Amino acid sequence: MTTSTTFLGLGAMGTALATAALDAGRPAVVWNRTPQRTHDLAARGAAVAATVAEAVAGDGVIVVCLFDHRSVHAVLDPVAAELSGRTVVNLTTTTPNESRELATWTAQHGATYLDGAIMAVPETIGQPGAAILYSGSDAAFTRHRALLDLWGTSSFVGTDAGLAPLHDMAMLVGMYTMFAGFLHGAAMVGSEGVSATEFTARQAPFLAAMTGQLAGLAATVDAKDYTGAGQQSLRFTEAALAALLRATAEQGVNGEVLKPVHDIVTRQIAAGYGEHGTARIVEELRSAR
Amino acid sequence: MTTSTTFLGLGAMGTALATAALDAGRPAVVWNRTPQRTHDLAARGAAVAATVAEAVAGDGVIVVCLFDHRSVHAVLDPVAAELSGRTVVNLTTTTPNESRELATWTAQHGATYLDGAIMAVPETIGQPGAAILYSGSDAAFTRHRALLDLWGTSSFVGTDAGLAPLHDMAMLVGMYTMFAGFLHGAAMVGSEGVSATEFTARQAPFLAAMTGQLAGLAATVDAKDYTGAGQQSLRFTEAALAALLRATAEQGVNGEVLKPVHDIVTRQIAAGYGEHGTARIVEELRSAR
Ligand SMILES: NC(=O)c1ccc[n+]([C@@H]2O[C@H](COP(=O)([O-])OP(=O)(O)OC[C@H]3O[C@@H](n4cnc5c(N)ncnc54)[C@H](OP(=O)(O)O)[C@@H]3O)[C@@H](O)[C@H]2O)c1
Ligand SMILES: NC(=O)c1ccc[n+]([C@@H]2O[C@H](COP(=O)([O-])OP(=O)(O)OC[C@H]3O[C@@H](n4cnc5c(N)ncnc54)[C@H](OP(=O)(O)O)[C@@H]3O)[C@@H](O)[C@H]2O)c1
Repeated sequence: MTTSTTFLGLGAMGTALATAALDAGRPAVVWNRTPQRTHDLAARGAAVAATVAEAVAGDGVIVVCLFDHRSVHAVLDPVAAELSGRTVVNLTTTTPNESRELATWTAQHGATYLDGAIMAVPETIGQPGAAILYSGSDAAFTRHRALLDLWGTSSFVGTDAGLAPLHDMAMLVGMYTMFAGFLHGAAMVGSEGVSATEFTARQAPFLAAMTGQLAGLAATVDAKDYTGAGQQSLRFTEAALAALLRATAEQGVNGEVLKPVHDIVTRQIAAGYGEHGTARIVEELRSAR
Repeated sequence: MTTSTTFLGLGAMGTALATAALDAGRPAVVWNRTPQRTHDLAARGAAVAATVAEAVAGDGVIVVCLFDHRSVHAVLDPVAAELSGRTVVNLTTTTPNESRELATWTAQHGATYLDGAIMAVPETIGQPGAAILYSGSDAAFTRHRALLDLWGTSSFVGTDAGLAPLHDMAMLVGMYTMFAGFLHGAAMVGSEGVSATEFTARQAPFLAAMTGQLAGLAATVDAKDYTGAGQQSLRFTEAALAALLRATAEQGVNGEVLKPVHDIVTRQIAAGYGEHGTARIVEELRSAR
C-alpha cells in the first residue's frame, strides 16, 4: 500500500494543495472541520477522514493549512501523542515566532517540523509563478521535495523555522508600502481629475524599473558604508520628500503614508548624517522605537 | 543667423541639457551664476553670456534649470521686461503650485510658459530611459518638440502648468515608499543575519511582479466600486498588516513606515467597509487630515 499524504484544512488554499497532490497521482487523506469542503476532493479520489485522529492514523507526511496559529493548535493538540516520528509541513500563515513555537512544540512530541510560507494564491498553486519558502527541518525539505515541488518553486531559507515566514513577511511589507504609496500618488493626480488608470500607465513601469535600484541599496546596507560614491544623500532626499509632502498638502491629499519616511530622514540628518547615502534609513529601522 | 537657445543654470542637469543641444548642432547661449561652470560648454561651441540680460537678449527659447523655485525668480525677475513674446521652458524641480505661479508670472510679462519634470539623472539625458513630462503651453510643446526630444521621451500631460510636477511627484511618492518598505524588510531579515543582498534577490523580482497588480487597483479606484469580485478585502488586509507589524516588533524592528497603512485600513473598517476591497485606502488619502 502506498503511503498517503494527510491534508488538514481544506479552505481555498488547503484544497488547492490537496488537489495538486491528487492530480499528480498521489494518494491523500483529507480532513476539514466543516465536512462539506471534502466533497470535491473525494470525487478526485481522496480518502475522507471523519476525525483528525483518523486523518493522521497513517504514516505519511502531514500537511497543515489552517486559518492561523491558534487553529493549528486547536487541530493538532488533541492528536499530539500520535505525531511521534511523523513530519508536519505547516503552510498556515504564522509569524516567525509562532512558527518557532510550533517547531518546538512538534519536537517535544517527537515530530519533525517544516514551515512553509506561500507566495501565491490558490488559483496559481502548481503554476510557474507560485513560490513557497520553507524553513525548519532541511531533512524534511529534501525528503519531501517531490511533493513540495508540485505546488510551486520551493526554496529552503534556513533551519530556524521562523525564517520562511520572516522572508515572506519582509517581502509583503515592501508590497503593501508600494501599494499604499501608489494609492497616495493616485490620490494626488486624482485631485486634478487625472484617472488612476492613466497614472498607472506611467507609474507601474517606473516602479518596476526602480526595483533595479534595490540591489545597490542592499549592497550599501550590507557594507554599512553610507559614504561611498554615487549615493543619493539624505540631505537631497529630505529636500525631495519635503517637496512631495508640500505638494501633497497643496493638493489636499493626506500625507500620512509618506510622512514617516521624511521623519526618519530628518532624524538621521539631525544625527549628523546629511551627507550620507539614503540607504542609511535602514539604521533607523533596525531597532524598534 | 540661426536662433540660439538660451540656457540659464548650468548645474549637473543644466549642463547635460545644454550639451545635448550643442551635440545636436544647435547654437546655444549659456549663463551660470558661477561662471566657471560655462567652460566645458564654451569648448563645445556655446556662446557664454556674462549676465542674464545678455543671455536672454536673443529671440530663442529660454531653458531654465536652476536649483528651485526661488532661484528661478532670483534669475528671471530682473529681466522680466525682456521676456515679452518669448517662451520659457522651466525644467527646475518645483511643486505643482510653484509651477502654476511661474505660469501666471510669465503670462503677466507676456511670455509663454512650459513646465518640465525630468524623470532622469544628468548621465541619462538623451538616452532611451530618460523621460520628461511637460505641462503648460501645448503650443510651446509642439513648436519646440525637436529640442525637447533631444533630452528624452517627451510627454505632454496637460495645459495646467502644475500637472507635470504633479505627475512626477505622485510617481516619486511610490518610489520612496517602496524604497522605505524595502529597507524595513531588509531590517527584518537582517535581524536574523540574512544579508540585504540575499533578500533583494527575492524581493526585487517580487515587487516588479507586484506592479502588475496596480492596473487592477487603479480600475477599482476609477470605478469607485470597492465591492466587485476578486478584491482583497480590507478585513483580510488588516489581518495581514497586523501580523506584519507583530512580526516586525518580535524581530525588534521599527514599524513606523508600515504603521500608517495599518491605521488607514483600521479606520476604513471602523467606518464599516471591512468587506470592501483594499483599494479603498485611497478614500482615506483623498482628503488631507
Ligand atoms: N488564500 C490565499 O491566497 C493564501 C495565500 C498565502 C497563504 N495563505 C494562508 O493559507 C492559510 C489558509 O488560507 P485559506 O485561503 O485556505 O483560508 P480559508 O479558505 O479561510 O480556510 C481556512 C481553513 O481553516 C479552517 N479553520 C479555521 N479555524 C479553525 C479551527 N479553529 N479549527 C479547525 N479548522 C479551522 C477552516 O475550516 P472550516 O472550513 O471549517 O471553516 C478552513 O479549512 C491561511 O493561513 C492563509 O493565510 C492563503
Ligand atoms: N540632478 C538630477 O538627477 C536631477 C533630476 C531631475 C531633476 N533635477 C532638477 O534639476 C534642477 C537642477 O539640478 P542640478 O542637478 O543641476 O543641481 P545643481 O548641480 O546643484 O545645480 C544648481 C544650479 O542652480 C544654480 N543656482 C542655485 N541657486 C541660485 C540662485 N539663487 N541664483 C542663480 N543660480 C542659482 C546653481 O548655480 P551655481 O553653479 O552658481 O551654484 C546651479 O547652476 C533642480 O531643480 C533639480 O531638482 C535634477
